Amino acid sequence: MDEMTKGAPQENVGILNSNSFDMSDLDTLDGELRDLVARRSVLGPCYRLFYQRPLHLVRGRGTRLFDADGTEYLDMYNNIPSIGHSNPVVTDAVTRQLGLINTHTRYVHENILDYADELVATLPGPIDRVMFMLSGSEANDLAVRCAQLYTGGEGIIVTAEAYHGNTALVSGLSPSIGHNVAMSRTMRMIPTPDTYRLGTDEIGGWMCERIAEQIADMRRHGIEFAGVLFDSIFSSDGVIPGASGFLKPVIDLVHAEGGVYIADEVQPGFCRTGKAFWGFARHGIEPDIVTMGKPMANGIPCSAMAIRHEVLDAFAERNPYFNTFAGNPVSMAAAQAVLRYMKGEHLLEHVDRIGDELLAEMRRAAADHPAIGDVRGTGLFAGVDIVVPGTTEPDRALAVRLIEKLREHRVLISLCGPYGNVLKIRPPLVFDEDDLVFFIEALDRSLAELDA
Amino acid sequence: MDEMTKGAPQENVGILNSNSFDMSDLDTLDGELRDLVARRSVLGPCYRLFYQRPLHLVRGRGTRLFDADGTEYLDMYNNIPSIGHSNPVVTDAVTRQLGLINTHTRYVHENILDYADELVATLPGPIDRVMFMLSGSEANDLAVRCAQLYTGGEGIIVTAEAYHGNTALVSGLSPSIGHNVAMSRTMRMIPTPDTYRLGTDEIGGWMCERIAEQIADMRRHGIEFAGVLFDSIFSSDGVIPGASGFLKPVIDLVHAEGGVYIADEVQPGFCRTGKAFWGFARHGIEPDIVTMGKPMANGIPCSAMAIRHEVLDAFAERNPYFNTFAGNPVSMAAAQAVLRYMKGEHLLEHVDRIGDELLAEMRRAAADHPAIGDVRGTGLFAGVDIVVPGTTEPDRALAVRLIEKLREHRVLISLCGPYGNVLKIRPPLVFDEDDLVFFIEALDRSLAELDA
Repeated sequence: MDEMTKGAPQENVGILNSNSFDMSDLDTLDGELRDLVARRSVLGPCYRLFYQRPLHLVRGRGTRLFDADGTEYLDMYNNIPSIGHSNPVVTDAVTRQLGLINTHTRYVHENILDYADELVATLPGPIDRVMFMLSGSEANDLAVRCAQLYTGGEGIIVTAEAYHGNTALVSGLSPSIGHNVAMSRTMRMIPTPDTYRLGTDEIGGWMCERIAEQIADMRRHGIEFAGVLFDSIFSSDGVIPGASGFLKPVIDLVHAEGGVYIADEVQPGFCRTGKAFWGFARHGIEPDIVTMGKPMANGIPCSAMAIRHEVLDAFAERNPYFNTFAGNPVSMAAAQAVLRYMKGEHLLEHVDRIGDELLAEMRRAAADHPAIGDVRGTGLFAGVDIVVPGTTEPDRALAVRLIEKLREHRVLISLCGPYGNVLKIRPPLVFDEDDLVFFIEALDRSLAELDA
Repeated sequence: MDEMTKGAPQENVGILNSNSFDMSDLDTLDGELRDLVARRSVLGPCYRLFYQRPLHLVRGRGTRLFDADGTEYLDMYNNIPSIGHSNPVVTDAVTRQLGLINTHTRYVHENILDYADELVATLPGPIDRVMFMLSGSEANDLAVRCAQLYTGGEGIIVTAEAYHGNTALVSGLSPSIGHNVAMSRTMRMIPTPDTYRLGTDEIGGWMCERIAEQIADMRRHGIEFAGVLFDSIFSSDGVIPGASGFLKPVIDLVHAEGGVYIADEVQPGFCRTGKAFWGFARHGIEPDIVTMGKPMANGIPCSAMAIRHEVLDAFAERNPYFNTFAGNPVSMAAAQAVLRYMKGEHLLEHVDRIGDELLAEMRRAAADHPAIGDVRGTGLFAGVDIVVPGTTEPDRALAVRLIEKLREHRVLISLCGPYGNVLKIRPPLVFDEDDLVFFIEALDRSLAELDA
């Protein structure tokens, strides 16, 4: 899942109410930055830049990023460089393998096998096959087809603000892309499981009811149910961990109705949500298919679909599949370096501990700042819901100003959720105590300066 | 375009008549190779290995590949490591950039801009925008949607053995994937433009007639014509260069009918076909969209869609697009290193010269070997059509035996075309005189040993 910057639909109407740069503001920039931003016209209008004054980043190390002027920022946003920007273990692995060989999977190579074995060992037993792709989009595109061929159905259920990728198939299953993009005719949506506004973290029953309704609606339209495609922390819906275990009855229902559960772990996977290596594991459930990407190789393009062999066989019987660059020895060396670093440095335990501290500190800050309506999260993935004080009404304009203010205080962050008002907090997993202090101070000051 | 190994449809019936390894032959292998191949079951049944005894490659340099036993092979097949296996200019560029920063396109970075400008400068003037992806599949998936939104039509025409990628959308436009895979209901096919069996390289008129028929058939079914998606050397159709210029009337017709011409340059682009940097340029035509991938960054995942801004605008008006890893500073550094190497080393002129020599030598060999029915090609992309002597009847079984025999003589190659009988010849572009002598000797001896 290559998630969208929140605000895409609104940007179609007016870009000003988001934290994306508006190209008509080009003349507010000057010097080299203006020239560089102007040159981006060659990339066409789909490309977006963060911030009213875009960032020209030239260097990164650990949790820190440096712009062309030498200004240092704490990165609270980027979940791809999960083991830290420019981690030398990845550079070394890539450099070494590039000096040897970098071909495709029609020749035998150890790297893909060693990594596949190590990866499958992190997953529940029934998930015994793994195929490699380059992006979360490619992984979800294939996963949906596997679910459809296995069940014989076409209907997929997603949440109302889901983002699952950019191919034709998965764009049509990504309502957060925007209201102008036609959704797949055979997909159905359930509302964002907004625990804050629903007033409870125990939303399993609520979600079961809505899924049952949508399955019934599909069948009424002659569409057979193929399954659900869920991110277990509902990242683009606004980072919603919910109570551990709430997805258990939901997935039981999906299976009882003959559907497949595709866990989109592109964001929650690889220690991000703490408690367990995978986001779904907090709920004591077993997916039929798991897709993954972003942090997998710390920025070297790499993604995968792990799957129960029975489900894959339904696809493989009729479809060959080849992906030129995927699973190549260089990407696999990078992915292996990441996984070994995570294990060697006990990142999961670190994420558990520091993630809890981060949540506790943010909740403490919330007591002083009525604009913080909700702080929720697990591990190093948190959402901070910015509201009109004393209400649960989302305050997107304030959230956008807060993003810009935090940038002044040298913290990079972004927004998500259906109202675009939720701080999306997911620093590199090597985030430490100093980073925590730095972030909380910046958050506190920024809110104070905004009288929020 | 991540092309398939020829033989996919037949493999569904019986794998023995292809040059893919049959997993039921596992016990014919021994030692480490057997163990490695057995371990590939974790990857599931979609993965294929070349050769009856798969190759375990551990090192590459220039045009040469080395297996675990130290055996050296001349690589006549792999078009990804276009500037040579393990070219240090790529390793150095990647290593340097990985040590600095590797983020996404929502921050400003020079690499994507420098590369985009250099790339657009190689294309016809009207193609003034470029967007980056990771695979040819992703590029074609987006290109088709741009063509559809621009024209308001859905109907795409491809050739009968085309391969344009592995996403749901472009799989449905890739008939070479196999007879068991459902093609898109709105696509139409024209027959493989088999110049050899048609008896002429001047097939523009022939192709125009067939396209006109298919457009008429689409309209009869209420499907509006959106355009054609053609590889200008028809790689998976059997490597068919045809006469320079034959595509001119074809593309004129496409435009007259309101369609968009998507040039799938994943294989013919980047000097491969000689004469010009792009494969379509041999025909004096201007595509509306150009997709590219494979050789672009010498194996670091990187692809792109270059497009006329009017065509892109129709998509961009309604659709945001973000691709997490695409256009990152590391991929762009690698792609830039490749492009600069191509220019600095005058690879286009080299490909022109050595490609002509290679064709001349293969034609000389054909005179001695009646199994060679046709030698065709341009630049360093050639097809050798293996037939029953004295006829134009394809001899696939012989072609498979030839592939294996060539491997004994230390040459790696594969097959393509609707009958799976055409040697697909596309060595790294740094292929030199010594390689040429080595290859021609191996080809001559292999055919002699097969009494062909």
